[in-house]
This record gives sequence, structure tokens and C-alpha cells, in this order.
Amino acid sequence: MASEQKQGRSPELRKDWVTNRWVVFSPARAKRPSDFKSKSPASTTSATTADQILDGCPFCLGHEHLCAPEIFRVPTSSDPDWKIRVIQNLYPALDRTLNDPSAVAPNPNLNGVEVLGGFGFHDVVIETPFHSLQLSDLSSQEISQVLLAYKNRILQLAAHSSIHYVQVFKNHGASAGASLSHSHSQIIGLPVVPPNVSARVDSMKQFFNETGKCSVCEIQVKELLIDESTHFISIVPFAATFPFEIWIIPRDHSSHFHQLDEAKAVDLGGLLKLMLRKMASQLNNPPFNFMIHTSPLRVTDPQLPYIHWFLQIIPQLTIVAGFEMATGCYINPVFPEDAAKVLREVPNPE
Amino acid sequence: MASEQKQGRSPELRKDWVTNRWVVFSPARAKRPSDFKSKSPASTTSATTADQILDGCPFCLGHEHLCAPEIFRVPTSSDPDWKIRVIQNLYPALDRTLNDPSAVAPNPNLNGVEVLGGFGFHDVVIETPFHSLQLSDLSSQEISQVLLAYKNRILQLAAHSSIHYVQVFKNHGASAGASLSHSHSQIIGLPVVPPNVSARVDSMKQFFNETGKCSVCEIQVKELLIDESTHFISIVPFAATFPFEIWIIPRDHSSHFHQLDEAKAVDLGGLLKLMLRKMASQLNNPPFNFMIHTSPLRVTDPQLPYIHWFLQIIPQLTIVAGFEMATGCYINPVFPEDAAKVLREVPNPE
Repeated sequence: MASEQKQGRSPELRKDWVTNRWVVFSPARAKRPSDFKSKSPASTTSATTADQILDGCPFCLGHEHLCAPEIFRVPTSSDPDWKIRVIQNLYPALDRTLNDPSAVAPNPNLNGVEVLGGFGFHDVVIETPFHSLQLSDLSSQEISQVLLAYKNRILQLAAHSSIHYVQVFKNHGASAGASLSHSHSQIIGLPVVPPNVSARVDSMKQFFNETGKCSVCEIQVKELLIDESTHFISIVPFAATFPFEIWIIPRDHSSHFHQLDEAKAVDLGGLLKLMLRKMASQLNNPPFNFMIHTSPLRVTDPQLPYIHWFLQIIPQLTIVAGFEMATGCYINPVFPEDAAKVLREVPNPE
Repeated sequence: MASEQKQGRSPELRKDWVTNRWVVFSPARAKRPSDFKSKSPASTTSATTADQILDGCPFCLGHEHLCAPEIFRVPTSSDPDWKIRVIQNLYPALDRTLNDPSAVAPNPNLNGVEVLGGFGFHDVVIETPFHSLQLSDLSSQEISQVLLAYKNRILQLAAHSSIHYVQVFKNHGASAGASLSHSHSQIIGLPVVPPNVSARVDSMKQFFNETGKCSVCEIQVKELLIDESTHFISIVPFAATFPFEIWIIPRDHSSHFHQLDEAKAVDLGGLLKLMLRKMASQLNNPPFNFMIHTSPLRVTDPQLPYIHWFLQIIPQLTIVAGFEMATGCYINPVFPEDAAKVLREVPNPE
């Protein structure tokens, strides 16, 4: 269907069975899909300063003393020429030194409030020793090492019996929440399964109960496809919450991100790099977030057939305002099949 | 408790029974509560140009021909010197001309998707004829007229049997989602009860079932109080999602915002004005959103005892990033009792 025809379409409400969320698609508010650009791009990298060290940046090579304690580094635990460091967050949202809450009775207050201690882990993954490189500047092999660092940290956190979910996410650009510009991602280990994760698992379970199938395995890709690799596909989801939102999904059913092996990590690294570069090229280097949506750690075997992990990338092109905050309904001006077509046709920026 | 002591507190997870949402309070990430300021304030008004008309602004007096059709105006339907206009949104998120979806069978697709037509109403309330005035510049009496315009439009939309919820909201400042700077708010009539509203009603019902009481009537105000008027109180909620979030709550149990009468509207107008002015003064005129959280239209009598409407104001001081989007858990660096103390002690800027 041609883009011109889409412009004449009526608004449509779509519900996604994975997120269990209704989204309003509103073509009356749209520019042409190919005209979407970030108005406030994240700062770009100059290729001439690829190994730059910035004075005062705590994440740069040689500035390790400015950081909170290191958890591990890649390639080895004592190599001064590290490629990746996983460290504690100097300003953690949760406190790893508090008592494990599973040992503490919750304190329900019948006047409408409940309080728990803020136990948990909040770590940072420094993706490169050099200030001037972004994740998408690294090779597929180097990105695979970042993904495997996530995996190894998840496995460490999973060994704490009171950690029930691990959220891996990346904020790129100040307006997407990155307080430091040096390329990094974050890992938070939570003592509870958070509400959006419960809702996702419940929604996947409902689909499984009704159809006997995994809702992610069953996604009809067709005109939603952007690109594919040996082990992964990238799509714009049918009920994308945000314009040009991208999901990277393992082809074969897999519940836990930490099941990723080295070969699949290189393959995923390549597709993630391609998506980030296409997005930067097409959308004027927008600030973005990506999040790994994996299974809660303590699931039982009967849950595995319907939980399928994926990686979600959200370029920051619109503003979440009063309507979305109040209702939980999102308004997306770009139909997903139009966004997928635009991204599919971006030349590989390599 | 002194602010210095709060700085030494551990992170805390709090759950609010009204919103059913967990929030992480993270003092390690905080400045002193009194140091919080907007880094990108909304533009301010000069008192010397109080009745300014801006060339090309469709919402200014005399530019009515630039707007989508009018629904009604205040004071009367033909007065050229209007004070308030309620008009159709020129770029509506939903389409009022589509078939009523209650007459259309939903189209469930067993491959994981559901689609509905985007029927609904999307209106704009122009709060003043003059470009240079903000809502908080108006008198309590004038603000009451805006609130009563909301009420009257809700009553009109309630007459459509297929409209199940009406969301009133205001986006102030470009980074809070206002695409036009002329002071206005928006009203969206929806053919469904949106997910956050269902979750709020369910949570209030659960509290009622457990205690026999309304969760909002039972809020223990104490150190959360900012100010109060004859019929309303303003507080920072115990598990505020955002720093310096404010709720204005009717003292007497009331389920529907549209039950507001003229005397209470003037009283609410005064307290809303005070909150907006205190917020602007203390927090450097931040962009903000406010939302009216009212009852779904088609509730039954047994639901009324536990549904209590309130108005929520959210100044934009932090960024919603990857962690919040992925998990639905919010991180708030300011304890609500500290924020309430700061706002309570701001001199009345009148």
C-alpha cells in the first residue's frame, strides 16, 4: 500500500498481545513517515578522534579511580587495557548493602500505603574505554562482548535468591536520560518482578492458554519486517507504542536473554549495530533507549513455552504528555508498516 | 524531621493504593529538595503585555477562523468578546466522524493482534483570548470558568452512549507536549475505559473491599499537606511518581469531577492557582502537565463509594528513561514529605 494512501487512513486502535497495550494510530497528526527526524539529535562522533580520552570523564580509560567499585572487566580481571568494565553505579537507585527484603516482613499500612526497603543492585556497563565511540561504532564482535557482559552480570545477580528480575537498559543522549555522554548501559537487579514485566508475562500466558502457541513466535512479520540475520529478526511491532520503535527478536523460542551463546551474540551484535545505524541515519541521530525484555528469573518450567525475550529500541521523536501519563494509552502518528518500510529501505550505512 | 537527616536515608520502595504503583525513592541521587529547579523553564509572561494578540496564533482573539469548529464559548454562544472557547482539535488523535464502535464487531486476530476503529472526540479548551496570559495569571473566578467549561463538555460527551471515559489534561511548555504556547487544555472522549483508569478503579475497589473505606478519603495527610481551602486539600502523595508531584483532592467524597458546582469551582480555582504559582516560583517555572482523574462515566451505584476524583499536577523535572519504560517502576529522588515541606513554605506569590 502506498504511503499516500496511508495518509488518508482513519485513526485505528491496535492492541498488542505481547505488551497487552492499546495504542492509538493517528495519521491526521503525521508528517510523511519518511519526514520524521529528531529535532534535538544526540551529539555525534567524529571519526578522527576515535580513541579520545576526555579529561574528567570517569568512564574513560585511565580514570577508573573516579568510579565506584568494579565488578568485572573484559577481557581479564587485571588487564589495564580493558575493553569493557562492569562497575557499581556511583548514584544507585537501589542499595545493595541493605538487608535482603525476603528476610524482612513487609510493612503494610492500612491507611493506603506500603513500604519496603530499597534493596537491589544498580550497575553500569562501560561499553568502550574511549569517549568518542558510541555502541554503534563498535564491530559486531565488540558489541557481542557487551551483550555477553550483560549475560554474565545477569548470571551473577541470578545467584542472589532474593533478586527476581534483572533489567538491562541503555539511555543514549541527555534527553533520553543519559547523565554521562560516554557510551554505557545499566543493569538493575530488583527484589520484585516489576509491574510491566508481570503484565507482559500474564499477557503472553493468556495468548498461550487460548492458542497453545507463543505470542512472539506467532508474530506475523510480513510488512513489519526491517531486516533479519541468521538467528534474529528486526521488526516494527504491529502496535508499536512509539514511532519507529524496533524489536529485535530471536527466531528460535528462548525465554531468558542469558541463554545467549557466543555465536548468537555476534549475530545479534551485527543486527543491533545495523538497527542503530539505520535509525541514526534516517532519523537524524535521535536520542534513544533500548531495553532487554527477558523472563523473570524464578519462573517454572510450565511458563517457559510462552515467555520469549526480545530487545526493544525506542528512538525519542515524540513527547509523552498528559494524555499518555493519565490514561496509559499512547498516541503514535506513524503506522508500523510505514515505519518498517522506511527503515527497511535505508541503505546499510556501513 | 530535618532535611539533613533525610539526606542520610536509605532508598525506600513505596506503593500507593490509589494508583497501585511502586515507586523507588532514591535519596542518593538527590540534590537537597530545595535545590530542585527546572533546567529548561517554560517561557514566562510579561505583565506589561497582558492582553497581547499574537499574529498567526489560531487561539488568539479574532483568529477564530484559523481554528477547527467551535463547540461552545463562554460567556455566551455568540459573544465576540469571549473569555473561553471549547473547539475541536484541528489534528485530532481520534475521529468523531467514524462509526460508533459499539455498533461494530471487534476484529480479533488470533495471530496476536486486535484492531478497533479510532472513534472518539478530541477537543481543545482555549483558556483565555490573550496570548500572553497563562492559566495561573487568571483570577480564581476566571479559572473556575475554565473548570466549569471542562464540566460542561464532559456532560455533553457523557450523553454519547459509546463514550466511556473523558480525560481532561493540560500540557504547559513545549517539552511537556504543548505544541502551541497559547494557554489551553485538552479533552479526549474515549470509547473505552483506558488501562490506567481501570487499574486505579480496581486498586480503589481492593482497598474498599479490605477496609470498607475510600482509599482517598483515608489518606493520612499530616506532613504531606501543602495547602488547603474550604473544599479541597493539596498534598504531595505518599508514593509520588515524580518529584514535587501535587494532588488536589476534594475533602468530601465525590466520584465524578462533573459534580463540581460553582462555589466549589471558585474554591478549586484558587487552590489550583496557588499551586501553579508556588510551583513556578520554587521550581523555576517548569513545564508541567495536569490531569483530572475522575470516574468512568458508566459506573454503577455500588462503585461510587470507592471512586474519588482528584487533580494531579506533574512538574517536568526529571526524564522518564529506559528503566521506567521497561519496568513501569519509577525512581523519584525526592521524598514526598520533603517536597511537601518545601512547597508548604513557599510564600504565596500573589
